[in-house]
Amino acid sequence: MSAVLLDDLRAALGAHYVLTGPDMAPWSRDWVGQYSWTPLAVARPASTAEVSEVMRLAHAARMPVVPVTGHTGLSGGTKAEGALMLSLDRLDQIEEIRPDARLARVGAGVILSNLHDAVAEHGLTFPMTFGAKGSARLGGMLATNAGGSNVLRYGNTRDLVLGLEAVLADGRVVDLMSELHKNNTGYDLRHLLIGSEGTLGIITRAVVKLVATPGAFATAMVATPTLDDALILLNRLQEMTGGAVEAFEYMPRAYIETYTKMHPEAREPFDTGHDVNILVELGATAPRDTTPGPDGAVPLSSYLEEVLGGLFEDGLVTDAVVAGSEAQRQAFWSMREAAAEVSLSQTPLVLNDVAVPLDKVGTFLRMAAEAIAVVDAQARDMTVAHLGDGNIHYVVWISDAAHKDPVMEAVEDVVLSLGGSFSAEHGIGVSKLPSMSRRKNGVALDMMRAIKQALDPHGILNPDKTVPSV
Amino acid sequence: MSAVLLDDLRAALGAHYVLTGPDMAPWSRDWVGQYSWTPLAVARPASTAEVSEVMRLAHAARMPVVPVTGHTGLSGGTKAEGALMLSLDRLDQIEEIRPDARLARVGAGVILSNLHDAVAEHGLTFPMTFGAKGSARLGGMLATNAGGSNVLRYGNTRDLVLGLEAVLADGRVVDLMSELHKNNTGYDLRHLLIGSEGTLGIITRAVVKLVATPGAFATAMVATPTLDDALILLNRLQEMTGGAVEAFEYMPRAYIETYTKMHPEAREPFDTGHDVNILVELGATAPRDTTPGPDGAVPLSSYLEEVLGGLFEDGLVTDAVVAGSEAQRQAFWSMREAAAEVSLSQTPLVLNDVAVPLDKVGTFLRMAAEAIAVVDAQARDMTVAHLGDGNIHYVVWISDAAHKDPVMEAVEDVVLSLGGSFSAEHGIGVSKLPSMSRRKNGVALDMMRAIKQALDPHGILNPDKTVPSV
Repeated sequence: MSAVLLDDLRAALGAHYVLTGPDMAPWSRDWVGQYSWTPLAVARPASTAEVSEVMRLAHAARMPVVPVTGHTGLSGGTKAEGALMLSLDRLDQIEEIRPDARLARVGAGVILSNLHDAVAEHGLTFPMTFGAKGSARLGGMLATNAGGSNVLRYGNTRDLVLGLEAVLADGRVVDLMSELHKNNTGYDLRHLLIGSEGTLGIITRAVVKLVATPGAFATAMVATPTLDDALILLNRLQEMTGGAVEAFEYMPRAYIETYTKMHPEAREPFDTGHDVNILVELGATAPRDTTPGPDGAVPLSSYLEEVLGGLFEDGLVTDAVVAGSEAQRQAFWSMREAAAEVSLSQTPLVLNDVAVPLDKVGTFLRMAAEAIAVVDAQARDMTVAHLGDGNIHYVVWISDAAHKDPVMEAVEDVVLSLGGSFSAEHGIGVSKLPSMSRRKNGVALDMMRAIKQALDPHGILNPDKTVPSV
Repeated sequence: MSAVLLDDLRAALGAHYVLTGPDMAPWSRDWVGQYSWTPLAVARPASTAEVSEVMRLAHAARMPVVPVTGHTGLSGGTKAEGALMLSLDRLDQIEEIRPDARLARVGAGVILSNLHDAVAEHGLTFPMTFGAKGSARLGGMLATNAGGSNVLRYGNTRDLVLGLEAVLADGRVVDLMSELHKNNTGYDLRHLLIGSEGTLGIITRAVVKLVATPGAFATAMVATPTLDDALILLNRLQEMTGGAVEAFEYMPRAYIETYTKMHPEAREPFDTGHDVNILVELGATAPRDTTPGPDGAVPLSSYLEEVLGGLFEDGLVTDAVVAGSEAQRQAFWSMREAAAEVSLSQTPLVLNDVAVPLDKVGTFLRMAAEAIAVVDAQARDMTVAHLGDGNIHYVVWISDAAHKDPVMEAVEDVVLSLGGSFSAEHGIGVSKLPSMSRRKNGVALDMMRAIKQALDPHGILNPDKTVPSV
């Protein structure tokens, strides 16, 4: 059976684009080395028509198919033991950029940083970015509804997509390549497919939104008395800048101390340590905000300084340093971007990618610290958070690997008690399937299973991922 | 069978809340009088638990159920001949407003303007608004993904919803009342239910986003040489204000001439007539943009004047008047808001609520004018458009009612050839079902039917709406 399928695939794509044996090595593990597997084969179609043909053949053979683009997922969503892997890397055309309409039409295989570079030539930005941008491809970002650093201002991946095209389990192609901002014609299949992790259809193309590139940034490290004050600060800054806050990143005292211990050359942002440190960045596209004009308008950094000065007098800010140069701005960001290095510097550890409502971040951190202490008296948390969108990367250094599962359970208990999410931006894949079974609303799970059954009755699309079967 | 169901409903809700006979009059027609019907009864539950009980009973009896809130739809989505109507008007509690987290928890029966008033006390806005705001209720707005006047800046209804709760066809309650900005835990059922027009579930509660209320507005009438220039103007204004454009509304010369003929007291905006007239409004929350500050910053209106002056020198703007008073601002808006009065002033007519990509509005208007002339040489179009989001209310005055269907077909042909939508913000209901059959992608329709069958196998939820059965 498999041999026939492989022959058919070779006939459809050309033998060169159906990999088996050692050629499959790059497709046989995830990039952090958490999972490895041996696929049946890797098919590399070059067009939507070829993706459709691969699915038609696989469907007839009832062969499980695992779609893959950039291999940068963190949840094992491309694990493919014995399955056919369908790589979309050859669908890498940026088909069209329309600057006036602020949109681009792209293939699922386009690498994120290539899209950034291509639209930059038009003074535009695709405002989704994260560490893996040099390898991550659009198809995987859409399949997982990727998050990242600019969600506060521009939303998640789904908020940046006007339309898409997908191939269904049986090979049919659904064309939803809308370029529209208003389109109320039936169920929103676009949002159903985005974030479904390749279990309902394989996204092959998309229409994405572009925005004007900020002409200037103003960046500061700010200390506030409490996390609740930090939220008030965020709201004030949003009001005073008309929503120009691009980043609002929380680092607690312990994080900064650990970072500066690891980087003796780095300067602490403040002369004295503070509990609540926020990296704030504003972005502005307006010329008036970048250069002193004839009307006396001030540059963005001076404006931020002036605003923070006022908030200091109100007692909302206890200390603040506005970056006076690009080098100082980069130093602030280096501290924030060392999160993985700092978090992973000690083992054993438990990694949580959670979200809570914006006004419950402080409560979460207090409750979680108490909860993990009950399990492991020597446990220490090491946190950084996208505070502007309630997403907390909550790492716990534990004294014994045996505490791993109970600590994760304890953290998830707190998250759920606050109405939070056990997977904010990394998705489910296989690694969070047990949490889905335990934590997700039962009726919601039943609805997901019914939808999966309706759209992929033979269960061949990325099986045993995302939605637990029981 | 029906008698038993009515007895059971009376036992569940109290006899007073199960209406029959003449009491059903307000629930027996849509507000424009396009459709009328005789329901079996009207059930008015007061809570999610009661909605669930109504659905459990109706499901057991295989009785069709049509949910309804404010009766302000334009597509016949609440037509309910012989069906049980389920009114959500008693679920009218604003349960919680959390200003710091910028969110409110509301029942499906809350009237839009009541929510506006309640959050205004906190200096906040729920930024969705339209003519029917005094009667429209949140449940219907979510069920239809309502549009309106602020979509350009704040998005459609779905973009303003963090979470929701719904009752399924068999009475089960699905709790998706997330307050989160990031939550990647399986299929996005929220977006599937929003815009499904009550055919997949009955939305009972929601968590909605709030934004800071603009402290100042600047409003202008602007003439540009062409519609393509208008789009460049929009992009420039967005860049120069950091995305503060709240409205960007197009009125052609014929519209303004007809309006001033109907309102002899009204002044034309310009001394000479122009083909392309745009109502532009900026909103600003920042104090610096509302009052001249010690640093010499200018008020928003002066800033807009200065920006338009620069664009005039670039040839992008041929004429402009910035409103110098609130009265002048209201006069500009009165002209725009007379759209229904102007459009409906002549019959027979054909109403189209269409959308095209932002950079194809001018092309659409040229092609549509040619296409309708082929059908009816005396036809005249009367257009206004939310130009900022590509939504065109395209009315055609025809010489003979017999041209109605061919003219609508001709307009839809043009819309589809430009990648547009035949229903931008009014939804499908029953009135656009024929267009769905003819125009929607066939695979998308098959997916919708499969999802409907999976979630409502007996087809009792708002049957024969939204998704054509064949």
